[in-house]
Amino acid sequence: MYRPQIKVLDCTIRDGGLANDSHFSLETVRAVYKACCQAGIDYVELGYRNSKEMFSPQEYGLWRFCDEEHLRRAVDGIDPGGTKLSVMQDAHKAVPEDILPADESVVDMIRIATYVKDVDKAIRLANNATDKGYEATINIMAISHEMGGPFLDEALQQIEEETSVQAVYVVDSFGALYSEEVHFLVSRFQKFLKTKEVGAHFHNNQQLAFANTIEAVIRNANYLDGTLYGLGRAAGNCPTELLIGFLKNPKFRIEPILDVISTTILPLREGIEWGYHIPYMLTGILDQHPREAMAWMNSESKNDFVSFYRMLTEESGEA
Amino acid sequence: MYRPQIKVLDCTIRDGGLANDSHFSLETVRAVYKACCQAGIDYVELGYRNSKEMFSPQEYGLWRFCDEEHLRRAVDGIDPGGTKLSVMQDAHKAVPEDILPADESVVDMIRIATYVKDVDKAIRLANNATDKGYEATINIMAISHEMGGPFLDEALQQIEEETSVQAVYVVDSFGALYSEEVHFLVSRFQKFLKTKEVGAHFHNNQQLAFANTIEAVIRNANYLDGTLYGLGRAAGNCPTELLIGFLKNPKFRIEPILDVISTTILPLREGIEWGYHIPYMLTGILDQHPREAMAWMNSESKNDFVSFYRMLTEESGEA
Repeated sequence: MYRPQIKVLDCTIRDGGLANDSHFSLETVRAVYKACCQAGIDYVELGYRNSKEMFSPQEYGLWRFCDEEHLRRAVDGIDPGGTKLSVMQDAHKAVPEDILPADESVVDMIRIATYVKDVDKAIRLANNATDKGYEATINIMAISHEMGGPFLDEALQQIEEETSVQAVYVVDSFGALYSEEVHFLVSRFQKFLKTKEVGAHFHNNQQLAFANTIEAVIRNANYLDGTLYGLGRAAGNCPTELLIGFLKNPKFRIEPILDVISTTILPLREGIEWGYHIPYMLTGILDQHPREAMAWMNSESKNDFVSFYRMLTEESGEA
Repeated sequence: MYRPQIKVLDCTIRDGGLANDSHFSLETVRAVYKACCQAGIDYVELGYRNSKEMFSPQEYGLWRFCDEEHLRRAVDGIDPGGTKLSVMQDAHKAVPEDILPADESVVDMIRIATYVKDVDKAIRLANNATDKGYEATINIMAISHEMGGPFLDEALQQIEEETSVQAVYVVDSFGALYSEEVHFLVSRFQKFLKTKEVGAHFHNNQQLAFANTIEAVIRNANYLDGTLYGLGRAAGNCPTELLIGFLKNPKFRIEPILDVISTTILPLREGIEWGYHIPYMLTGILDQHPREAMAWMNSESKNDFVSFYRMLTEESGEA
């Protein structure tokens, strides 16, 4: 009953790194990697390989850059089973030169995150990756702002024609999409991407990340992102444990996932606050970047939701 | 673009009462009632009217019984606008004699919660309510255990023929349903209920309560339950604020909802723990009652998820 084409990618360390400037301990990264390998997760994404000219290594942790030596320490001695290793490059914050030839790297796949407007940069980085022997994907962020107009279609057509990436992701950066929009977007991606899979990466502002992932699966999206216990910036992500509970492929094992949440993820809550909160819910409903909600959550007015709502809606009323 | 037939019912006090034995202060109940009236919510459910022979008034709070005098104190001086007042009776734990004639009561609607096996008791209580002049519904609990076999169909047919309730709810007590099952169940209800609306009451064990409510709406369910900030037993419910954010009827106002969450609901977290937790997620995935998860959450092993998972799956392996 399961669909063998489905690939689950756990991006706890990568997406969670947006919540703590990628300051995870080596011990945490190794525990997450090991659990995902034991659970049969298809890909584990351990961070960004972004440019040290764009991000200060003094300010950001190791997993914003994922130097080969640090990745090797993260995976050393752990049996990957069938699990592959992924890193992400931001189209507008990374350079091709940071990518070694694949046979000199522990990395298997490079995912390029991009806005529609940066698609040419994304294509350059994606082709750099595939030329060097990696698997690659392109992940189109802030997709809820690209529902109208011709640019998304053009970008998808370009990706189809000019790259050999294996998947292109619908990324709901703002947690704004409802199921009908997921159906619409997955079908629209498929219309242009005749030779590539569609992926799903959803945020949980409206408690819809897991549900929308299921809806994407129903429309034949096959690349699915999750994070452990939903760890991620602001409201967080589709919880990997829910995805594994839902999918029927017998290769998946939930116990290592439950164990690492218990031992490694829950303790992180002392330093990182993520999950469903009203300010994140409001930016989701209003289809806005969560940055103002994150600032509000760090203010003394944190629980004054009415003032925050008025601030957001007055701003969006500006003309 | 909105569907005027849609009715939203907030059951924060009633369903939340399962998490604190209905021990809400009068101040809390009044604040919730007032906010829902101001927000344009169609119905507010302030508790159960269950039998004092079945529940001890020493052990349970006022809102397990909803005596008329206590309801009158809850609503006194608050302009209801168009908002109606509801109470719930459990088919197997309530008696017809506890219901006054409607013109002597502040209650507008009586909802009968039942298992399929108790449908005859439910019909008796529902007819008692409508005969006395109330609106009434029947809410079929534990529906995920009734997917197969003939008994659900028979119960629906009986309700259609033998009552004049206005709606019959799909109640996912265990938070086990996925969207395709919601579609299946709503359609199945509609097949038998030619003269009645279908309602949706979902639990959030798998973070699907809101998503499944949307899916029910898509299939033309028109009676929708929510609770403020999802307050409810175990993983809680569909958050009313998400529902109001989603629905397009201009009569709904979200600010009173945001305000009461801020001032009244968040402080309740000191005494009640609800929301997404791995033990509740596991009983949801395994389609089991949350009672064992609730006990686990109150134990010292609370965060030992692997042991809890093994306990559940070994038990369900018993034959």
